[in-house]
Amino acid sequence: MPSTDPSPASHSLTNGDTKGLKVSNAQIKGWREQLNDDDYAVLALRNLIFDICHQNSGGHGGSAIGMAAIGVALYKYVMRYNPSNPDWFDRDRFVLSNGHAAMFLYALNHLTGFDNWTMDEIKGYGSAKTDGYKTICHAHPEIEVPGVEVTTGPLGQGIANAVGLAIASKNLAARYNRPGHDIVKSRIYAMCGDGCLMEGVALEAISLAGSLQLDNLVVLYDNNQVTCDGPLDWINTEDVNAKMRASNWHVLEVADGNYDVQAIVSALNYAKVLKGKPVFINIRTVIGLGTSVAGTYKAHHGVFDKESVEISKRLAGQDPSVTHVVPPNSLAYFRERKFHGESLEKSWNTLLTEYASDYPDLAASLTKARKGDNGTEWLDILKGIDSTQFQGKATRDANGVLIDKIWKAHPALCGGGADLVNSNKVSYSPEDVFHPTVGYAGRYIRYGIREHAMAAISNGIAAYNPGTFLPITATFLLFYIYAAPGVRMGALSHLPVIHFATHDSFAEGQNGPTHQPVEVDSLYRAMPNLTYIRPADGEEVIGAWILAMSKRDGPTLLSLGRDPVGHVPSTNRYNVAKGAYVVVDVPDHKLTLASAGTNLHYAVAAAESFTKSGIPTRVVSAPSFEHFDKQDAEYRNSVFPLDGTPIVSVEEYVATTWARYVTASAGMTTYGYSASNASNYDRFGLDAKGIERRVRKYLEDLNGANARQAGWRQI
Amino acid sequence: MPSTDPSPASHSLTNGDTKGLKVSNAQIKGWREQLNDDDYAVLALRNLIFDICHQNSGGHGGSAIGMAAIGVALYKYVMRYNPSNPDWFDRDRFVLSNGHAAMFLYALNHLTGFDNWTMDEIKGYGSAKTDGYKTICHAHPEIEVPGVEVTTGPLGQGIANAVGLAIASKNLAARYNRPGHDIVKSRIYAMCGDGCLMEGVALEAISLAGSLQLDNLVVLYDNNQVTCDGPLDWINTEDVNAKMRASNWHVLEVADGNYDVQAIVSALNYAKVLKGKPVFINIRTVIGLGTSVAGTYKAHHGVFDKESVEISKRLAGQDPSVTHVVPPNSLAYFRERKFHGESLEKSWNTLLTEYASDYPDLAASLTKARKGDNGTEWLDILKGIDSTQFQGKATRDANGVLIDKIWKAHPALCGGGADLVNSNKVSYSPEDVFHPTVGYAGRYIRYGIREHAMAAISNGIAAYNPGTFLPITATFLLFYIYAAPGVRMGALSHLPVIHFATHDSFAEGQNGPTHQPVEVDSLYRAMPNLTYIRPADGEEVIGAWILAMSKRDGPTLLSLGRDPVGHVPSTNRYNVAKGAYVVVDVPDHKLTLASAGTNLHYAVAAAESFTKSGIPTRVVSAPSFEHFDKQDAEYRNSVFPLDGTPIVSVEEYVATTWARYVTASAGMTTYGYSASNASNYDRFGLDAKGIERRVRKYLEDLNGANARQAGWRQI
Repeated sequence: MPSTDPSPASHSLTNGDTKGLKVSNAQIKGWREQLNDDDYAVLALRNLIFDICHQNSGGHGGSAIGMAAIGVALYKYVMRYNPSNPDWFDRDRFVLSNGHAAMFLYALNHLTGFDNWTMDEIKGYGSAKTDGYKTICHAHPEIEVPGVEVTTGPLGQGIANAVGLAIASKNLAARYNRPGHDIVKSRIYAMCGDGCLMEGVALEAISLAGSLQLDNLVVLYDNNQVTCDGPLDWINTEDVNAKMRASNWHVLEVADGNYDVQAIVSALNYAKVLKGKPVFINIRTVIGLGTSVAGTYKAHHGVFDKESVEISKRLAGQDPSVTHVVPPNSLAYFRERKFHGESLEKSWNTLLTEYASDYPDLAASLTKARKGDNGTEWLDILKGIDSTQFQGKATRDANGVLIDKIWKAHPALCGGGADLVNSNKVSYSPEDVFHPTVGYAGRYIRYGIREHAMAAISNGIAAYNPGTFLPITATFLLFYIYAAPGVRMGALSHLPVIHFATHDSFAEGQNGPTHQPVEVDSLYRAMPNLTYIRPADGEEVIGAWILAMSKRDGPTLLSLGRDPVGHVPSTNRYNVAKGAYVVVDVPDHKLTLASAGTNLHYAVAAAESFTKSGIPTRVVSAPSFEHFDKQDAEYRNSVFPLDGTPIVSVEEYVATTWARYVTASAGMTTYGYSASNASNYDRFGLDAKGIERRVRKYLEDLNGANARQAGWRQI
Repeated sequence: MPSTDPSPASHSLTNGDTKGLKVSNAQIKGWREQLNDDDYAVLALRNLIFDICHQNSGGHGGSAIGMAAIGVALYKYVMRYNPSNPDWFDRDRFVLSNGHAAMFLYALNHLTGFDNWTMDEIKGYGSAKTDGYKTICHAHPEIEVPGVEVTTGPLGQGIANAVGLAIASKNLAARYNRPGHDIVKSRIYAMCGDGCLMEGVALEAISLAGSLQLDNLVVLYDNNQVTCDGPLDWINTEDVNAKMRASNWHVLEVADGNYDVQAIVSALNYAKVLKGKPVFINIRTVIGLGTSVAGTYKAHHGVFDKESVEISKRLAGQDPSVTHVVPPNSLAYFRERKFHGESLEKSWNTLLTEYASDYPDLAASLTKARKGDNGTEWLDILKGIDSTQFQGKATRDANGVLIDKIWKAHPALCGGGADLVNSNKVSYSPEDVFHPTVGYAGRYIRYGIREHAMAAISNGIAAYNPGTFLPITATFLLFYIYAAPGVRMGALSHLPVIHFATHDSFAEGQNGPTHQPVEVDSLYRAMPNLTYIRPADGEEVIGAWILAMSKRDGPTLLSLGRDPVGHVPSTNRYNVAKGAYVVVDVPDHKLTLASAGTNLHYAVAAAESFTKSGIPTRVVSAPSFEHFDKQDAEYRNSVFPLDGTPIVSVEEYVATTWARYVTASAGMTTYGYSASNASNYDRFGLDAKGIERRVRKYLEDLNGANARQAGWRQI
């Protein structure tokens, strides 16, 4: 490659002075004589990226071009994977945390011969996609597509996902590997740019990975010193290597990441033998290398100058007027990986056969783990458990008991909390902790005070292999707003994770409005693919667990109370699946109260009072709007009748989420107050007395009118 | 203090072996002879904290006790403040980022003589607060209370707030200080624990503060090596000093933070002369010092053993049976600060008089800045601007023009974006950047890829002094989910900040579902004190600006589109304040379509088609639900009639937020798709054609029934 050529023309290829540059055939020939197969492969990759970027006038090409040599090093020399079987269990996992550089991954998947990544599909990148046309070449990689490990794009998430993948691999290795039978060797490679390394979620995950000494994790830093808005030093002047070392990471450096494939390979191979810490490889590259905008923010997005692309193609021996054609030698160079990958998997299968012979029980267990077969004991327990033991207890307490019971019965459960597990009531045994001082076979993870990373790491664990892990997380509901971007990515990616959100109201022990969610449910009740369930008592907690544990295609958030709940009649674990159901029925009802969670028992008490005073009042428990919306119209109308009688929701949250079902709502319009359970329900008029007062006023205002016709009201 | 006493009994005071400990009067006498005034002050503070912690059987006392010597150093020797005037403009600002240790701040405020912090108020901490009783002693500090700079509690936020306060002070100093007239000298002190330093928001803010070289900022790390769940090394083993140095901070250490007040004072004074970087002081303390649970997670929360408290009181010369009485000598020691503070402010006023004489124009400008008097030119511009120039343009483009125009006319505007400002259309001039290489007088802040810190830092800037700064932030709407905890804290704290959220739909340029908000509005439309406005075109962007700029008691989020919008008739800047209003009216309407933002023009087109086909259809633009909900019932019912005619909302978001107004909604129930504007509106049935199809189906299903009685439907 011309990196050693001192001529100005060659130099200009990396420095962005190529606009209008004329390079003679003799010069091209001179340079080509210095090139080896790696160099040609880098050029072929880069030229394909140019084509992808230009086919629909744009895309995030600059980083992808700068990272081409890294891609060759990873996909040709280092990573263990099988293009013929993207789901091979023991493959190394690659995470493109800088997901906007998607075409880097797509081009490599095509070149190495993943069956679905045809050139025709590649051409879909950036297309108009009219008439419902679908593509696998999304602007950011999406997990549903074979050859993509996790959905990335929102910066920082991928690094945390990679930490989760590394935890998963370490855990499996600790549980299943035996001397001479390293059945789990999967290593995790994450590519990131400057942006990822500024995001809090990545910084949290990096800190945890260092503390956990995850030496099966390699983060490759595409150090191009440029971000969207300008040079990096406008916004960040930290010493990233020193920071990573301080975080207990090994740090390696590659000075020339533009051309020197073997230098990158050396670093990656060295990383394999480094133990006791994750590895950070700081690789200096030039964004939009060899184009007129090289090294500047202008290379981040858009098309590149024609002259530069021409030179690059001529260097590769390609006809500059032809696109989407890979030179045969380079294609062969990459496609050899397909055979290599098949051979890798074959050897692994042989190893697995030996392993099954030497360790039949372990092998049987591994087979189940690979299939995501976690038996049915957990379900039998949930069905059989007597909920009277939870009467008068907080839902967090009931939940804690279930965690303890089901943990033992469900081998895929893993995870933990963000340093509040005593309050969350997540118990664990010290020998079951996943930690270098204890070993990596444990399933309990101490996330530290890193809510956002906890959620994103959980996604990585869940993404390792479908059903092999069922991660849990735990913190206060309020702090799930810290974790929200991670929870969202899990929902978008259809990854099963169970989030235990305790202290879910202003009855949370005086912490005050900073800790009291009044609007967090609005986010989670609206989030597609996320099941938000707010059980009212121990019986409903069991029902919520049955749903959460059965869900294979997305996360569940259980909203749980800190304080004991009063008695609610007729709650039923199986009715939780209906989303909402009648818990107090009366003949000839004139009023319905609907509520959920810790507020429900106050609604029941208010209803009793109404009924006694001559207004027969029903009560509905509505633990899950999502499940209710899935019921048929007849059932829905039986729960929330369309007969014009008033239906009032009662919940210590901003009430607008209820408006679709009810005719009026008593809820919060402000933040809470630093006071205790009873005093806050009184203060905000959401105890039995307050509900009665508000509803009576509403009934007076209605004055017998059809409540539906009168329109929804905040009361 | 006994720290130098080698006797086991004294040693036990720091190591938690005090349970049942008997200490003779002779021992106490021996130790007391070694104590100086500082030591007694520390004991007095600690004993008051014990009393606060015990008065209602709990609270987060452990850290507060461990931090007592730090409090004495800060409040007695280092900080410039005036207890008689908590709002003195040039005071040093103290941020308790570990807000759960609130009693530390409360006790110091009481001891140093803040008028509102009486012992009676102190006794309100942790009380039941029944019958509507209110207190200033919230479980976490709240900004409304004089003597509290910012509301803290959710970990990490305070560090970012402190960075904001430091930016504000630096900016004012650069703009107003003149040789010999350092009219702005305010320094920022933030106290934090292990938790804050693990949170992503703090890590982002720390990185930015180092890059900005904010040498007026000191973070004091209460290094007690314990978190809620256990010892710190369970979850974090990083070298925090090395990490801070790598982030371009000075690092100082104090080995004995339990007793050695003067060592802490030395470090704090040294910090004052260190230039070019913020200062991190790592202070080793023991949580719950001198109690039976010292040094363990059990000290984090709850009450302490009686014996330890008794010994502590006897050491201070206090009667152990008496609570809430400060020894007179120690009270005098602290209360002297009241006079000192008054004298500081008096000197400053003298300096200000001289300054006004030497620099009358600057002084006049400063007076306005202090008052938050930003004139009315900005309003005149907004009223006068001709919005026809924005026709057919994206709302982000109109917004960009307004930023440019109003920036010059409103001296308090400051802030910037999170590395997407070219896409957000936030323009700025290079000489107006707040950066060490340019100077600190600039108002444009490059936040880097740190959305969460951006929001939290903005809160700190706004909190510096009411009206002196009106911070803006900018990124994609989706990434405001990263920033949400900071935005929420601003809303809770009533701090005016304007958030510009562009790319607010699936019409955002193919980035795909990772970048396409469908549920983020649900959070922000529910968040109390946060005004969410989604303007449909340039005219409504102007109206949104009038509201946002006029709001003094909380943040506003402007939801803005990336792509050009079609024509909407009758939009009106002044009607935005009504929240929703009719933009297309027809006689004898049979249908109303309601929409907002980039989706509205499709609704207008669909309505035209309906009207032509014999179904007279009105259209409502609803840029702000919050403002609409403030209108009287007559107006509200005129916009969304209760006459039983169908009213259908149309928006490319999860539709449940609309259910309170309309009879049916066409919205999203899934995430978006990586495709362009037109193709996604088509794909998800939200272009004119799709709307018409969905609404016709709905009308058929209704079959002439009263739409309100039929109940809300997702169509």
